[in-house]
Amino acid sequence: MTADLSGRLIAIDWGTSRLRARLLDGNARVLAETASDRGIGTLSGGHEAIFEETVAAWPAVPAIMAGMIGSRQGWREAPYVPCPATPAAIAAAIKPFTTASGRPVAIVPGLVLDAPARDGDVIRGEETQLIGLLEQEPAFAGIAVLPGTHSKWARVEGRAIVSFQSFMSGELFELLSRTSFLRHSVAAQATGDLSAAPDFTLAVRRVSEGLPFAASLFSVRTRYLLANAPPDANLAYLSGLVIGGEIAAARDLGLLTKGTPVRIVGATALAAGLVTLARHLGFIS
Amino acid sequence: MTADLSGRLIAIDWGTSRLRARLLDGNARVLAETASDRGIGTLSGGHEAIFEETVAAWPAVPAIMAGMIGSRQGWREAPYVPCPATPAAIAAAIKPFTTASGRPVAIVPGLVLDAPARDGDVIRGEETQLIGLLEQEPAFAGIAVLPGTHSKWARVEGRAIVSFQSFMSGELFELLSRTSFLRHSVAAQATGDLSAAPDFTLAVRRVSEGLPFAASLFSVRTRYLLANAPPDANLAYLSGLVIGGEIAAARDLGLLTKGTPVRIVGATALAAGLVTLARHLGFIS
Repeated sequence: MTADLSGRLIAIDWGTSRLRARLLDGNARVLAETASDRGIGTLSGGHEAIFEETVAAWPAVPAIMAGMIGSRQGWREAPYVPCPATPAAIAAAIKPFTTASGRPVAIVPGLVLDAPARDGDVIRGEETQLIGLLEQEPAFAGIAVLPGTHSKWARVEGRAIVSFQSFMSGELFELLSRTSFLRHSVAAQATGDLSAAPDFTLAVRRVSEGLPFAASLFSVRTRYLLANAPPDANLAYLSGLVIGGEIAAARDLGLLTKGTPVRIVGATALAAGLVTLARHLGFIS
Repeated sequence: MTADLSGRLIAIDWGTSRLRARLLDGNARVLAETASDRGIGTLSGGHEAIFEETVAAWPAVPAIMAGMIGSRQGWREAPYVPCPATPAAIAAAIKPFTTASGRPVAIVPGLVLDAPARDGDVIRGEETQLIGLLEQEPAFAGIAVLPGTHSKWARVEGRAIVSFQSFMSGELFELLSRTSFLRHSVAAQATGDLSAAPDFTLAVRRVSEGLPFAASLFSVRTRYLLANAPPDANLAYLSGLVIGGEIAAARDLGLLTKGTPVRIVGATALAAGLVTLARHLGFIS
Protein backbone atom coordinates (compact mmCIF):
# COMPACT_ATOMS: atom_id res chain seq x y z
CA MET A 1 0.00 0.00 0.00
CA THR A 2 1.35 3.44 -0.93
CA ALA A 3 0.25 6.57 0.86
CA ASP A 4 -1.61 9.15 -1.20
CA LEU A 5 0.92 11.98 -1.37
CA SER A 6 -1.08 14.22 -3.69
CA GLY A 7 -0.86 17.81 -2.62
CA ARG A 8 1.78 17.23 0.02
CA LEU A 9 4.69 19.60 0.03
CA ILE A 10 7.79 20.37 2.02
CA ALA A 11 8.07 24.10 2.68
CA ILE A 12 11.40 25.42 3.96
CA ASP A 13 12.51 28.76 5.38
CA TRP A 14 16.31 28.57 5.15
CA GLY A 15 17.86 31.80 6.34
CA THR A 16 21.22 33.03 7.55
CA SER A 17 20.94 31.63 11.06
CA ARG A 18 18.07 29.13 11.02
CA LEU A 19 16.59 26.32 8.96
CA ARG A 20 12.87 25.63 9.42
CA ALA A 21 11.16 22.85 7.47
CA ARG A 22 7.48 21.92 7.39
CA LEU A 23 5.61 19.04 5.83
CA LEU A 24 2.27 20.42 4.58
CA ASP A 25 -0.84 18.63 3.39
CA GLY A 26 -2.86 19.63 0.32
CA ASN A 27 -4.59 22.34 2.34
CA ALA A 28 -1.33 23.85 3.65
CA ARG A 29 -1.89 22.40 7.10
CA VAL A 30 1.27 21.52 8.99
CA LEU A 31 1.66 17.76 9.35
CA ALA A 32 5.17 17.86 10.81
CA GLU A 33 7.92 20.40 11.36
CA THR A 34 11.55 20.62 12.34
CA ALA A 35 14.07 23.39 12.88
CA SER A 36 17.80 23.68 13.43
CA ASP A 37 20.47 26.35 13.68
CA ARG A 38 22.12 25.19 10.45
CA GLY A 39 21.48 28.50 8.71
CA ILE A 40 23.50 29.24 5.59
CA GLY A 41 25.69 31.66 7.55
CA THR A 42 27.05 28.69 9.51
CA LEU A 43 27.74 26.48 6.45
CA SER A 44 30.30 26.24 3.70
CA GLY A 45 28.69 23.91 1.22
CA GLY A 46 27.01 20.59 1.99
CA HIS A 47 23.50 22.05 1.63
CA GLU A 48 22.05 19.03 -0.16
CA ALA A 49 23.23 16.62 2.54
CA ILE A 50 21.73 18.81 5.27
CA PHE A 51 18.50 19.07 3.29
CA GLU A 52 18.25 15.29 2.89
CA GLU A 53 18.98 14.76 6.57
CA THR A 54 16.34 17.33 7.54
CA VAL A 55 13.56 15.72 5.49
CA ALA A 56 14.69 12.08 5.80
CA ALA A 57 11.72 11.03 7.95
CA TRP A 58 9.14 12.54 5.59
CA PRO A 59 7.66 11.24 2.32
CA ALA A 60 9.49 11.98 -0.94
CA VAL A 61 7.28 14.92 -1.98
CA PRO A 62 8.55 18.08 -3.74
CA ALA A 63 10.29 20.71 -1.64
CA ILE A 64 10.23 24.49 -2.06
CA MET A 65 12.43 26.86 -0.08
CA ALA A 66 12.93 30.58 0.40
CA GLY A 67 15.52 32.79 2.08
CA MET A 68 19.28 33.16 1.93
CA ILE A 69 19.52 29.57 0.61
CA GLY A 70 19.08 31.22 -2.83
CA SER A 71 21.97 33.65 -2.33
CA ARG A 72 25.46 33.32 -3.77
CA GLN A 73 26.51 31.68 -0.49
CA GLY A 74 23.54 29.28 -0.57
CA TRP A 75 22.81 25.95 -2.24
CA ARG A 76 22.16 27.36 -5.72
CA GLU A 77 21.97 31.03 -6.57
CA ALA A 78 18.47 32.17 -7.57
CA PRO A 79 19.11 35.55 -9.20
CA TYR A 80 17.05 38.54 -8.05
CA VAL A 81 13.81 39.39 -9.87
CA PRO A 82 13.28 43.12 -10.51
CA CYS A 83 10.41 45.14 -8.96
CA PRO A 84 7.52 45.57 -9.54
CA ALA A 85 7.08 41.79 -9.30
CA THR A 86 3.90 39.69 -9.29
CA PRO A 87 3.74 36.21 -7.72
CA ALA A 88 3.49 34.79 -11.28
CA ALA A 89 6.67 36.62 -12.36
CA ILE A 90 8.53 35.35 -9.31
CA ALA A 91 7.27 31.80 -9.97
CA ALA A 92 8.34 32.06 -13.62
CA ALA A 93 11.91 32.94 -12.53
CA ILE A 94 12.26 29.82 -10.40
CA LYS A 95 14.41 27.08 -11.95
CA PRO A 96 13.44 23.80 -10.24
CA PHE A 97 16.01 21.03 -10.10
CA THR A 98 16.22 17.47 -8.87
CA THR A 99 18.34 16.22 -5.98
CA ALA A 100 20.63 13.19 -6.32
CA SER A 101 17.87 11.22 -4.58
CA GLY A 102 15.43 12.25 -7.32
CA ARG A 103 13.32 14.75 -5.40
CA PRO A 104 12.03 17.91 -7.20
CA VAL A 105 13.31 21.01 -5.43
CA ALA A 106 12.72 24.74 -6.00
CA ILE A 107 14.50 27.77 -4.56
CA VAL A 108 12.61 31.08 -4.60
CA PRO A 109 14.57 34.10 -5.90
CA GLY A 110 14.80 37.38 -3.99
CA LEU A 111 13.79 40.77 -5.37
CA VAL A 112 15.95 43.69 -6.41
CA LEU A 113 14.80 47.30 -6.49
CA ASP A 114 16.31 49.95 -8.72
CA ALA A 115 16.61 52.75 -6.13
CA PRO A 116 19.36 55.12 -7.33
CA ALA A 117 19.20 57.36 -4.24
CA ARG A 118 20.58 54.48 -2.17
CA ASP A 119 22.18 52.26 -4.83
CA GLY A 120 19.33 49.77 -4.90
CA ASP A 121 17.84 47.42 -2.36
CA VAL A 122 17.33 43.65 -2.07
CA ILE A 123 15.19 41.14 -0.19
CA ARG A 124 15.34 37.36 0.09
CA GLY A 125 12.60 35.45 1.87
CA GLU A 126 10.30 38.42 2.46
CA GLU A 127 9.04 38.27 -1.16
CA THR A 128 7.54 34.89 -0.25
CA GLN A 129 5.88 36.32 2.88
CA LEU A 130 4.44 39.08 0.68
CA ILE A 131 3.09 36.47 -1.75
CA GLY A 132 1.45 34.89 1.30
CA LEU A 133 -0.13 38.26 2.12
CA LEU A 134 -1.42 38.58 -1.46
CA GLU A 135 -2.83 35.05 -1.23
CA GLN A 136 -4.83 36.07 1.83
CA GLU A 137 -5.72 39.57 0.61
CA PRO A 138 -5.44 39.63 -3.21
CA ALA A 139 -6.76 43.19 -3.46
CA PHE A 140 -4.49 44.67 -0.77
CA ALA A 141 -2.97 48.01 -1.71
CA GLY A 142 -0.77 49.65 0.90
CA ILE A 143 2.31 49.08 3.03
CA ALA A 144 3.40 45.72 4.40
CA VAL A 145 5.85 45.85 7.31
CA LEU A 146 8.00 42.77 7.87
CA PRO A 147 9.78 42.97 11.24
CA GLY A 148 13.02 41.11 11.80
CA THR A 149 16.80 41.32 12.02
CA HIS A 150 16.67 43.30 8.79
CA SER A 151 13.14 44.62 8.65
CA LYS A 152 11.46 45.59 5.40
CA TRP A 153 8.70 48.00 4.43
CA ALA A 154 7.11 47.01 1.13
CA ARG A 155 4.60 48.82 -1.07
CA VAL A 156 2.05 46.37 -2.47
CA GLU A 157 -0.39 47.40 -5.20
CA GLY A 158 -2.09 45.89 -8.26
CA ARG A 159 -1.30 42.35 -6.99
CA ALA A 160 2.42 43.14 -7.21
CA ILE A 161 5.30 44.02 -4.92
CA VAL A 162 6.04 47.52 -6.20
CA SER A 163 8.98 48.63 -4.03
CA PHE A 164 10.55 48.13 -0.62
CA GLN A 165 12.93 49.65 1.90
CA SER A 166 15.31 47.67 4.13
CA PHE A 167 16.26 48.59 7.69
CA MET A 168 18.76 47.02 10.10
CA SER A 169 16.57 47.61 13.15
CA GLY A 170 16.66 44.14 14.70
CA GLU A 171 20.44 43.88 14.37
CA LEU A 172 20.93 47.48 15.55
CA PHE A 173 18.92 46.75 18.68
CA GLU A 174 21.00 43.64 19.39
CA LEU A 175 24.28 45.52 18.89
CA LEU A 176 23.22 48.52 20.97
CA SER A 177 21.73 46.50 23.83
CA ARG A 178 24.34 43.72 24.04
CA THR A 179 27.61 45.07 22.68
CA SER A 180 27.67 48.89 22.90
CA PHE A 181 28.41 50.80 26.13
CA LEU A 182 24.61 51.08 26.54
CA ARG A 183 24.63 47.43 27.67
CA HIS A 184 25.57 48.69 31.15
CA SER A 185 22.35 50.75 31.25
CA VAL A 186 19.78 48.16 30.13
CA ALA A 187 18.65 44.69 31.19
CA ALA A 188 20.57 41.82 29.59
CA GLN A 189 17.33 40.16 28.54
CA ALA A 190 13.76 41.24 27.90
CA THR A 191 11.20 40.11 30.45
CA GLY A 192 7.94 39.98 28.55
CA ASP A 193 6.85 42.05 25.57
CA LEU A 194 9.08 45.13 25.33
CA SER A 195 6.58 46.98 23.16
CA ALA A 196 3.99 46.79 25.97
CA ALA A 197 6.17 48.90 28.31
CA PRO A 198 5.29 52.61 28.78
CA ASP A 199 8.95 53.53 28.13
CA PHE A 200 8.75 51.85 24.72
CA THR A 201 5.81 54.08 23.76
CA LEU A 202 7.58 57.16 25.17
CA ALA A 203 10.67 56.47 23.04
CA VAL A 204 8.68 55.78 19.86
CA ARG A 205 6.78 59.04 20.38
CA ARG A 206 9.96 61.07 20.99
CA VAL A 207 11.78 59.80 17.92
CA SER A 208 8.76 59.98 15.64
CA GLU A 209 7.89 63.48 16.89
CA GLY A 210 11.16 65.35 16.42
CA LEU A 211 14.07 63.85 18.38
CA PRO A 212 16.43 62.63 15.61
CA PHE A 213 17.24 58.92 15.98
CA ALA A 214 21.02 59.50 15.94
CA ALA A 215 20.64 62.15 18.67
CA SER A 216 18.45 59.90 20.83
CA LEU A 217 20.74 56.96 21.56
CA PHE A 218 23.02 58.46 24.21
CA SER A 219 19.93 59.25 26.32
CA VAL A 220 19.64 55.54 27.20
CA ARG A 221 22.80 56.08 29.25
CA THR A 222 21.68 59.40 30.70
CA ARG A 223 18.32 58.03 31.87
CA TYR A 224 20.14 55.28 33.75
CA LEU A 225 22.71 57.66 35.19
CA LEU A 226 20.51 60.63 36.11
CA ALA A 227 17.01 59.26 36.47
CA ASN A 228 17.76 55.75 37.78
CA ALA A 229 15.69 54.24 34.98
CA PRO A 230 15.18 50.53 35.82
CA PRO A 231 17.21 48.34 33.41
CA ASP A 232 14.16 46.48 32.06
CA ALA A 233 12.23 49.70 31.39
CA ASN A 234 15.37 51.15 29.79
CA LEU A 235 15.72 48.15 27.48
CA ALA A 236 12.15 48.83 26.33
CA TYR A 237 13.11 52.49 25.86
CA LEU A 238 16.08 51.54 23.66
CA SER A 239 13.84 49.21 21.64
CA GLY A 240 11.37 52.09 21.23
CA LEU A 241 14.11 54.40 19.96
CA VAL A 242 15.12 51.89 17.29
CA ILE A 243 11.52 51.19 16.21
CA GLY A 244 10.73 54.92 16.39
CA GLY A 245 13.75 55.58 14.15
CA GLU A 246 12.38 53.10 11.62
CA ILE A 247 8.87 54.62 11.73
CA ALA A 248 10.19 58.19 11.43
CA ALA A 249 12.37 57.20 8.46
CA ALA A 250 9.44 55.43 6.76
CA ARG A 251 7.32 58.54 7.25
CA ASP A 252 10.07 60.82 5.92
CA LEU A 253 10.35 58.56 2.87
CA GLY A 254 6.62 58.86 2.23
CA LEU A 255 5.96 55.19 3.01
CA LEU A 256 3.74 55.99 5.97
CA THR A 257 1.11 58.54 5.08
CA LYS A 258 -2.25 59.17 6.67
CA GLY A 259 -4.84 56.75 5.38
CA THR A 260 -2.39 54.25 3.86
CA PRO A 261 -3.44 50.72 4.85
CA VAL A 262 -0.67 48.94 6.76
CA ARG A 263 -0.24 45.23 7.44
CA ILE A 264 2.32 43.67 9.76
CA VAL A 265 3.39 40.46 8.02
CA GLY A 266 4.84 37.71 10.19
CA ALA A 267 6.73 34.49 9.49
CA THR A 268 3.50 32.50 9.20
CA ALA A 269 2.82 34.16 5.83
CA LEU A 270 5.91 32.43 4.43
CA ALA A 271 4.31 28.96 4.28
CA ALA A 272 1.27 30.41 2.48
CA GLY A 273 3.58 32.09 -0.04
CA LEU A 274 5.52 28.87 -0.62
CA VAL A 275 2.27 26.97 -1.25
CA THR A 276 1.18 29.58 -3.83
CA LEU A 277 4.52 29.34 -5.64
CA ALA A 278 4.50 25.52 -5.50
CA ARG A 279 1.10 25.62 -7.21
CA HIS A 280 2.49 27.90 -9.95
CA LEU A 281 5.32 25.38 -10.46
CA GLY A 282 2.94 22.45 -10.68
CA PHE A 283 4.49 20.87 -7.54
CA ILE A 284 0.94 20.66 -6.17
CA SER A 285 -2.37 21.12 -7.87
CA MET B 1 70.36 72.27 44.49
CA THR B 2 66.55 72.03 44.01
CA ALA B 3 64.93 72.46 40.63
CA ASP B 4 62.65 75.44 40.20
CA LEU B 5 59.27 73.78 39.79
CA SER B 6 57.22 76.98 39.70
CA GLY B 7 54.51 76.75 37.08
CA ARG B 8 55.05 73.11 36.34
CA LEU B 9 51.95 70.96 36.20
CA ILE B 10 50.92 67.41 35.43
CA ALA B 11 47.91 67.35 33.11
CA ILE B 12 46.06 64.05 32.71
CA ASP B 13 43.37 62.83 30.34
CA TRP B 14 42.04 59.71 32.04
CA GLY B 15 39.19 58.22 30.08
CA THR B 16 37.38 54.92 29.78
CA SER B 17 39.99 53.18 27.66
CA ARG B 18 43.16 55.30 27.88
CA LEU B 19 45.31 57.23 30.36
CA ARG B 20 47.44 60.05 28.93
CA ALA B 21 49.67 62.12 31.23
CA ARG B 22 51.79 65.16 30.36
CA LEU B 23 54.31 67.15 32.34
CA LEU B 24 53.87 70.80 31.35
CA ASP B 25 56.06 73.82 32.01
CA GLY B 26 54.73 77.21 33.11
CA ASN B 27 53.88 78.04 29.51
CA ALA B 28 51.92 74.82 28.97
CA ARG B 29 54.70 73.36 26.83
CA VAL B 30 54.99 69.59 27.00
CA LEU B 31 58.20 68.53 28.80
CA ALA B 32 57.37 64.84 28.92
CA GLU B 33 54.44 62.57 28.25
CA THR B 34 53.30 59.02 28.75
CA ALA B 35 50.23 56.97 27.88
CA SER B 36 48.82 53.57 28.71
CA ASP B 37 45.66 51.55 28.17
CA ARG B 38 44.83 51.62 31.86
CA GLY B 39 41.58 53.49 31.30
CA ILE B 40 39.04 53.44 34.10
CA GLY B 41 36.92 50.93 32.18
CA THR B 42 39.70 48.38 32.70
CA LEU B 43 40.14 49.02 36.44
CA SER B 44 38.35 48.21 39.65
CA GLY B 45 39.98 50.53 42.16
CA GLY B 46 43.71 51.10 42.59
CA HIS B 47 43.62 54.47 40.80
CA GLU B 48 46.03 56.19 43.20
CA ALA B 49 48.67 53.48 42.77
CA ILE B 50 48.40 53.68 38.98
CA PHE B 51 48.61 57.46 39.16
CA GLU B 52 51.76 57.36 41.32
CA GLU B 53 53.35 54.81 39.01
CA THR B 54 52.51 56.91 35.95
CA VAL B 55 54.11 60.09 37.32
CA ALA B 56 56.90 58.47 39.35
CA ALA B 57 59.71 59.76 37.11
CA TRP B 58 58.45 63.34 37.18
CA PRO B 59 58.84 66.09 39.82
CA ALA B 60 56.31 66.30 42.67
CA VAL B 61 54.22 69.09 41.13
CA PRO B 62 50.41 69.35 41.34
CA ALA B 63 48.32 67.18 39.02
CA ILE B 64 44.99 67.95 37.42
CA MET B 65 42.92 65.42 35.49
CA ALA B 66 39.78 65.25 33.41
CA GLY B 67 37.59 62.50 31.95
CA MET B 68 35.84 59.43 33.31
CA ILE B 69 38.29 59.41 36.25
CA GLY B 70 35.75 61.75 37.90
CA SER B 71 32.82 59.39 37.36
CA ARG B 72 31.26 57.10 39.96
CA GLN B 73 33.53 54.30 38.67
CA GLY B 74 36.62 56.55 38.85
CA TRP B 75 39.07 57.56 41.56
CA ARG B 76 36.79 60.08 43.28
CA GLU B 77 33.41 61.16 41.99
CA ALA B 78 33.35 64.80 40.85
CA PRO B 79 29.60 65.56 40.63
CA TYR B 80 28.27 67.14 37.44
CA VAL B 81 28.04 70.95 37.18
CA PRO B 82 24.82 72.24 35.58
CA CYS B 83 24.76 74.18 32.28
CA PRO B 84 25.22 76.98 31.41
CA ALA B 85 28.69 76.72 33.00
CA THR B 86 31.64 79.12 32.87
CA PRO B 87 35.24 77.97 33.37
CA ALA B 88 35.18 79.78 36.75
CA ALA B 89 32.04 77.90 37.85
CA ILE B 90 33.61 74.59 36.83
CA ALA B 91 36.83 75.50 38.69
CA ALA B 92 34.82 76.46 41.77
CA ALA B 93 33.19 73.02 41.82
CA ILE B 94 36.54 71.20 41.91
CA LYS B 95 37.48 69.77 45.31
CA PRO B 96 41.25 69.28 45.30
CA PHE B 97 42.72 66.64 47.58
CA THR B 98 46.14 65.34 48.52
CA THR B 99 47.55 61.91 47.73
CA ALA B 100 49.15 59.73 50.41
CA SER B 101 52.48 60.92 49.01
CA GLY B 102 51.48 64.53 49.70
CA ARG B 103 50.83 65.68 46.13
CA PRO B 104 47.94 68.12 45.40
CA VAL B 105 45.51 66.57 42.95
CA ALA B 106 42.36 67.88 41.28
CA ILE B 107 39.67 66.05 39.28
CA VAL B 108 37.55 68.14 36.91
CA PRO B 109 33.78 67.55 37.11
CA GLY B 110 31.64 66.86 34.05
CA LEU B 111 28.60 68.86 33.01
CA VAL B 112 24.93 67.97 33.14
CA LEU B 113 22.26 69.49 30.92
CA ASP B 114 18.60 69.70 31.87
CA ALA B 115 17.11 68.52 28.56
CA PRO B 116 13.63 67.13 29.34
CA ALA B 117 12.95 66.02 25.75
CA ARG B 118 15.68 63.39 26.12
CA ASP B 119 15.96 63.05 29.91
CA GLY B 120 19.11 65.17 30.15
CA ASP B 121 22.61 64.82 28.81
CA VAL B 122 26.11 64.59 30.32
CA ILE B 123 29.74 65.09 29.32
CA ARG B 124 33.01 64.30 31.09
CA GLY B 125 36.30 65.47 29.65
CA GLU B 126 34.84 67.54 26.81
CA GLU B 127 34.05 70.43 29.23
CA THR B 128 37.81 70.78 29.67
CA GLN B 129 38.40 70.80 25.91
CA LEU B 130 35.74 73.53 25.65
CA ILE B 131 37.53 75.53 28.35
CA GLY B 132 40.63 75.18 26.19
CA LEU B 133 38.67 76.58 23.23
CA LEU B 134 37.50 79.53 25.37
CA GLU B 135 41.10 80.11 26.46
CA GLN B 136 42.12 80.41 22.81
CA GLU B 137 39.00 82.28 21.64
CA PRO B 138 37.38 83.97 24.67
CA ALA B 139 34.75 85.73 22.56
CA PHE B 140 33.72 82.65 20.57
CA ALA B 141 29.97 82.29 20.15
CA GLY B 142 28.78 79.33 18.13
CA ILE B 143 28.91 75.55 17.94
CA ALA B 144 31.90 73.46 18.99
CA VAL B 145 32.00 69.92 17.59
CA LEU B 146 34.06 67.38 19.55
CA PRO B 147 34.51 64.18 17.50
CA GLY B 148 35.13 60.86 19.21
CA THR B 149 33.64 57.57 20.36
CA HIS B 150 30.79 59.60 21.83
CA SER B 151 30.91 62.86 19.92
CA LYS B 152 29.45 66.08 21.31
CA TRP B 153 28.06 69.25 19.80
CA ALA B 154 28.22 72.15 22.28
CA ARG B 155 26.75 75.64 22.12
CA VAL B 156 29.24 78.17 23.48
CA GLU B 157 28.20 81.76 24.15
CA GLY B 158 28.95 84.54 26.65
CA ARG B 159 32.14 82.75 27.77
CA ALA B 160 30.04 79.81 28.93
CA ILE B 161 29.10 76.32 27.78
CA VAL B 162 25.38 76.81 27.28
CA SER B 163 24.18 73.39 26.15
CA PHE B 164 25.34 70.26 24.35
CA GLN B 165 24.14 67.16 22.53
CA SER B 166 25.80 63.74 22.71
CA PHE B 167 26.02 61.26 19.83
CA MET B 168 27.35 57.69 19.70
CA SER B 169 28.81 58.09 16.20
CA GLY B 170 32.32 56.73 16.82
CA GLU B 171 31.03 53.66 18.62
CA LEU B 172 28.22 53.14 16.07
CA PHE B 173 30.76 53.17 13.24
CA GLU B 174 32.91 50.60 15.04
CA LEU B 175 29.93 48.33 15.71
CA LEU B 176 28.55 48.60 12.20
CA SER B 177 31.89 48.14 10.43
CA ARG B 178 33.37 45.43 12.66
CA THR B 179 30.51 43.52 14.28
CA SER B 180 27.34 43.89 12.20
CA PHE B 181 26.66 41.90 9.00
CA LEU B 182 27.96 44.95 7.11
CA ARG B 183 31.49 43.85 8.08
CA HIS B 184 31.38 41.47 5.09
CA SER B 185 30.85 44.45 2.76
CA VAL B 186 33.57 46.84 3.97
CA ALA B 187 37.33 46.77 4.48
CA ALA B 188 38.48 45.54 7.89
CA GLN B 189 40.68 48.61 8.32
CA ALA B 190 40.83 52.10 6.93
CA THR B 191 43.67 52.83 4.56
CA GLY B 192 44.26 56.56 4.85
CA ASP B 193 41.77 59.28 5.71
CA LEU B 194 38.25 57.95 5.18
CA SER B 195 36.79 61.44 4.96
CA ALA B 196 38.95 62.19 1.90
CA ALA B 197 37.23 59.45 -0.15
CA PRO B 198 34.56 60.47 -2.72
CA ASP B 199 32.18 57.83 -1.31
CA PHE B 200 32.42 59.49 2.13
CA THR B 201 31.23 62.77 0.62
CA LEU B 202 28.50 61.00 -1.34
CA ALA B 203 27.15 59.34 1.81
CA VAL B 204 27.27 62.55 3.88
CA ARG B 205 25.37 64.35 1.11
CA ARG B 206 22.72 61.64 0.80
CA VAL B 207 21.98 61.46 4.53
CA SER B 208 22.08 65.20 5.07
CA GLU B 209 19.87 65.80 2.00
CA GLY B 210 16.91 63.54 2.64
CA LEU B 211 17.86 59.86 2.99
CA PRO B 212 17.01 59.08 6.63
CA PHE B 213 20.01 57.67 8.53
CA ALA B 214 18.11 54.56 9.71
CA ALA B 215 17.02 53.88 6.11
CA SER B 216 20.54 54.33 4.74
CA LEU B 217 22.49 51.60 6.53
CA PHE B 218 21.39 48.53 4.57
CA SER B 219 22.63 50.20 1.38
CA VAL B 220 26.24 49.48 2.44
CA ARG B 221 25.40 45.82 1.80
CA THR B 222 23.52 46.51 -1.44
CA ARG B 223 26.36 48.58 -2.92
CA TYR B 224 28.75 45.71 -2.30
CA LEU B 225 26.32 43.11 -3.65
CA LEU B 226 24.93 44.92 -6.70
CA ALA B 227 27.53 47.53 -7.61
CA ASN B 228 30.73 45.74 -6.57
CA ALA B 229 31.73 48.71 -4.42
CA PRO B 230 35.39 48.20 -3.37
CA PRO B 231 35.60 47.37 0.37
CA ASP B 232 37.77 50.40 1.20
CA ALA B 233 35.49 52.84 -0.64
CA ASN B 234 32.50 51.17 1.04
CA LEU B 235 34.06 51.63 4.49
CA ALA B 236 34.35 55.34 3.69
CA TYR B 237 30.72 55.27 2.55
CA LEU B 238 29.62 53.74 5.88
CA SER B 239 31.64 56.34 7.77
CA GLY B 240 29.94 59.06 5.70
CA LEU B 241 26.49 57.68 6.56
CA VAL B 242 27.26 57.83 10.29
CA ILE B 243 28.75 61.33 10.10
CA GLY B 244 25.94 62.43 7.79
CA GLY B 245 23.43 61.12 10.33
CA GLU B 246 25.09 63.20 13.04
CA ILE B 247 25.11 66.33 10.86
CA ALA B 248 21.48 65.86 9.78
CA ALA B 249 20.41 65.38 13.40
CA ALA B 250 22.35 68.48 14.51
CA ARG B 251 20.66 70.48 11.76
CA ASP B 252 17.19 69.14 12.67
CA LEU B 253 17.87 70.11 16.29
CA GLY B 254 18.73 73.66 15.23
CA LEU B 255 22.40 73.31 16.24
CA LEU B 256 23.65 73.82 12.70
CA THR B 257 22.10 76.87 11.11
CA LYS B 258 23.38 79.00 8.27
CA GLY B 259 25.92 81.52 9.53
CA THR B 260 26.56 79.86 12.91
CA PRO B 261 30.33 79.75 13.54
CA VAL B 262 31.55 76.18 13.99
CA ARG B 263 34.81 74.95 15.52
CA ILE B 264 36.08 71.38 15.49
CA VAL B 265 37.77 70.91 18.86
CA GLY B 266 40.40 68.19 19.15
CA ALA B 267 42.16 66.48 22.02
CA THR B 268 44.93 69.10 22.06
CA ALA B 269 42.48 71.62 23.57
CA LEU B 270 42.30 69.46 26.70
CA ALA B 271 45.76 70.40 27.98
CA ALA B 272 44.96 74.10 27.49
CA GLY B 273 41.74 73.67 29.46
CA LEU B 274 43.52 71.83 32.29
CA VAL B 275 46.08 74.66 32.51
CA THR B 276 43.28 77.25 32.77
CA LEU B 277 41.57 75.30 35.56
CA ALA B 278 44.88 74.71 37.39
CA ARG B 279 45.37 78.48 37.38
CA HIS B 280 41.89 79.01 38.86
CA LEU B 281 42.80 76.50 41.59
CA GLY B 282 46.09 78.22 42.37
CA PHE B 283 48.05 75.11 41.34
CA ILE B 284 50.06 77.39 39.04
CA SER B 285 50.23 81.17 38.88
